Amino acid sequence: MQNANNAQLRFSMVKQRHRKTFEEALAKGLVDRQLIPICKFISKQREFFTSSGCAGRILLICLPKGEEKKEAFFVAKWHRKVKFSELKEALAKECNNELWFKQEPFILHIGTNTIENARKILKIAKKAGIKRGGIMHLGLGKIMIELVGTQYLSLPIKKGKKLLADDRFIKFILQKANKKLEKNYERLKKFERILISELSP
Amino acid sequence: MQNANNAQLRFSMVKQRHRKTFEEALAKGLVDRQLIPICKFISKQREFFTSSGCAGRILLICLPKGEEKKEAFFVAKWHRKVKFSELKEALAKECNNELWFKQEPFILHIGTNTIENARKILKIAKKAGIKRGGIMHLGLGKIMIELVGTQYLSLPIKKGKKLLADDRFIKFILQKANKKLEKNYERLKKFERILISELSP
Repeated sequence: MQNANNAQLRFSMVKQRHRKTFEEALAKGLVDRQLIPICKFISKQREFFTSSGCAGRILLICLPKGEEKKEAFFVAKWHRKVKFSELKEALAKECNNELWFKQEPFILHIGTNTIENARKILKIAKKAGIKRGGIMHLGLGKIMIELVGTQYLSLPIKKGKKLLADDRFIKFILQKANKKLEKNYERLKKFERILISELSP
Repeated sequence: MQNANNAQLRFSMVKQRHRKTFEEALAKGLVDRQLIPICKFISKQREFFTSSGCAGRILLICLPKGEEKKEAFFVAKWHRKVKFSELKEALAKECNNELWFKQEPFILHIGTNTIENARKILKIAKKAGIKRGGIMHLGLGKIMIELVGTQYLSLPIKKGKKLLADDRFIKFILQKANKKLEKNYERLKKFERILISELSP
């Protein structure tokens, strides 16, 4: 009983903290547009919260030698479809080693208080066709679920000052990346619809 | 109490079935070499089992129009580093639409009977630096954990009969894929070491 009370207290505190962080990020325009309806809905639920998340993106990342992630930096980052001219412009920017072109899927972290609630989220994710993710942390009064999309594309595109591929190929992979990003957002929208329908009273 | 007994009974049955499937697959040489020590160790544990898994691979996959996964087929698949000559040979094979070159990370499914045991696996995975995955199913007497690596590379490489990139680029991405695959196997080895050390009596 003491444990249950501690869990409830801890969850309330964590939930409150994350709601505040979310509202601040929202006010500053830092929340990905495609995630706002999901995050807003979850924020209003008494037994759930969201922590970090990304709706999915297209990016250029500069990897220094050894590919240490810490030293990597984004040369460009878009949470939407990208035009060839925009990509070309970004490709002209400096990266002293390897530049990678990537389309990454959404990643969303949802927190809850009980295993039963975590199970609900897993079921909703499954129903929405989300194949990757699960409960990644099971703490007292804090259970974290990670959901990840499966649409991605990733390749090196420039080495030093030299492009590794010609415009025709770059156009082709950008078209693929845009299409995959669109599919990724559709999956997220499907999750949003099912989530709202299943969790609404 | 009835529930606990049912859960125990169900787990025993599931565990026995998966051990049998694993032993048959092992006898037929169908288990990825890099996964054998992990699967053998887990198979011997009373409260854990493995179901499906892949150690990580390099592959060529032919995607029909619309990219329906059901109709996609592998043109080549290697669970090891690949030579340029091998890749070139495989690239000459027929694919009537888009051919993609991919390096995929490991994926491993571990089953257990209690939440406490699932938590142990999550902790071991975290300690081994595995960032993706979690508990994906919470059934009575059957909890499934999925662990996924983060090393990957994925791009279209051929359209119809036409290669989209020149040999120099193909050599470069193959070298990257081989390096990422190696890192992937190292991560799996680290997980194996920590798993055996933490779960051994």
